[in-house]
Amino acid sequence: MSGPVDFHFDFSSPYAYFASTRIDALAARHGRACRWRPMLLGPAFRASGNQPLADQPLKGAYSRHDWDRLSRLWQVPYRAPDRFPVATQAAARVFLWLDAADGAAAKAFGARVFAAYFAEGRPIDAADLAADLAAEMGHDRAQARAAVDDPAWKDLLRRETDGAVAAGVFGAPFFVVDGEGFWGADRLWMVEEWLARGGW
Amino acid sequence: MSGPVDFHFDFSSPYAYFASTRIDALAARHGRACRWRPMLLGPAFRASGNQPLADQPLKGAYSRHDWDRLSRLWQVPYRAPDRFPVATQAAARVFLWLDAADGAAAKAFGARVFAAYFAEGRPIDAADLAADLAAEMGHDRAQARAAVDDPAWKDLLRRETDGAVAAGVFGAPFFVVDGEGFWGADRLWMVEEWLARGGW
Repeated sequence: MSGPVDFHFDFSSPYAYFASTRIDALAARHGRACRWRPMLLGPAFRASGNQPLADQPLKGAYSRHDWDRLSRLWQVPYRAPDRFPVATQAAARVFLWLDAADGAAAKAFGARVFAAYFAEGRPIDAADLAADLAAEMGHDRAQARAAVDDPAWKDLLRRETDGAVAAGVFGAPFFVVDGEGFWGADRLWMVEEWLARGGW
Repeated sequence: MSGPVDFHFDFSSPYAYFASTRIDALAARHGRACRWRPMLLGPAFRASGNQPLADQPLKGAYSRHDWDRLSRLWQVPYRAPDRFPVATQAAARVFLWLDAADGAAAKAFGARVFAAYFAEGRPIDAADLAADLAAEMGHDRAQARAAVDDPAWKDLLRRETDGAVAAGVFGAPFFVVDGEGFWGADRLWMVEEWLARGGW
């Protein structure tokens, strides 16, 4: 089997941020491509009855501690954002606009958005910031800003989200490869096992 | 550091069952003892707002599939029980009764209970079955049966559950070592990393 690893994420998920720093290299070690697929967690949470981690008693405190220790363990810069979670439509639509032309450029932008939010504490919910980050990376700022309000990318993001939920995605990060779903940054070992064995 | 790994579990958790087949060897590889500590997930779920996995849309289906594939990957016998989850007070109290005299005997009994439920589909909520399993392992059946209704073990189980929740335990399996908590069978790699590095 040789299909890609689909990496479903929301830019507001710390675990997706941590996983984003590892999933491409992991897939590449086993000769697989990796597709980054932004979605919105809100509809996935409504479908599954889940809640944002930070709002949950006990699990919220556990997660906050866990993000700090995962940052140290994997040496990935992380600082808890002041506002969390935030809306991620703007960044996701700019990602999709870039992705339609150039998957690698979209990933580089995605990595920049994650870092802006989780390492630098910047307000990635702002359409202007999404456009600024795209411009920093050499893309046309006006086009990037326009993509945020363009019905085409709004619609694609909605379809990506609905499609992910219909396929069983209830959280992020969520990896799908060879039709198998794996939930969570703590499951990267299992994705790797799957690729190494070619399934089991 | 050289304290034990505390393994908090409920006999009705498939993920705790899978983890129970690995945690002692994992701890031993790093010169640590492992304490098995039964609890009741009901109060932990009430405190954290969680629900039994099987009842959750999307996550329930994911988990059922995941238990089957974890069984194949780790080669641990598993058959989804007809009734799930079940009350685990009886088995947990017999465990605590045994544990007061002999930790190793309690673990062996615990492993037997997990297998009876998750590999053989037996009704481990029945006080008589808990006593039968203890008797099979050479313990006094009448004493084991009496332990189920003994206020001393009822009270200890309540205190173990309350103490775990007060310490932040919201699910099972939940490992605590050197004051660090790790949730889930999919976090065994992180427990191992912690022990190998002596923390980070």
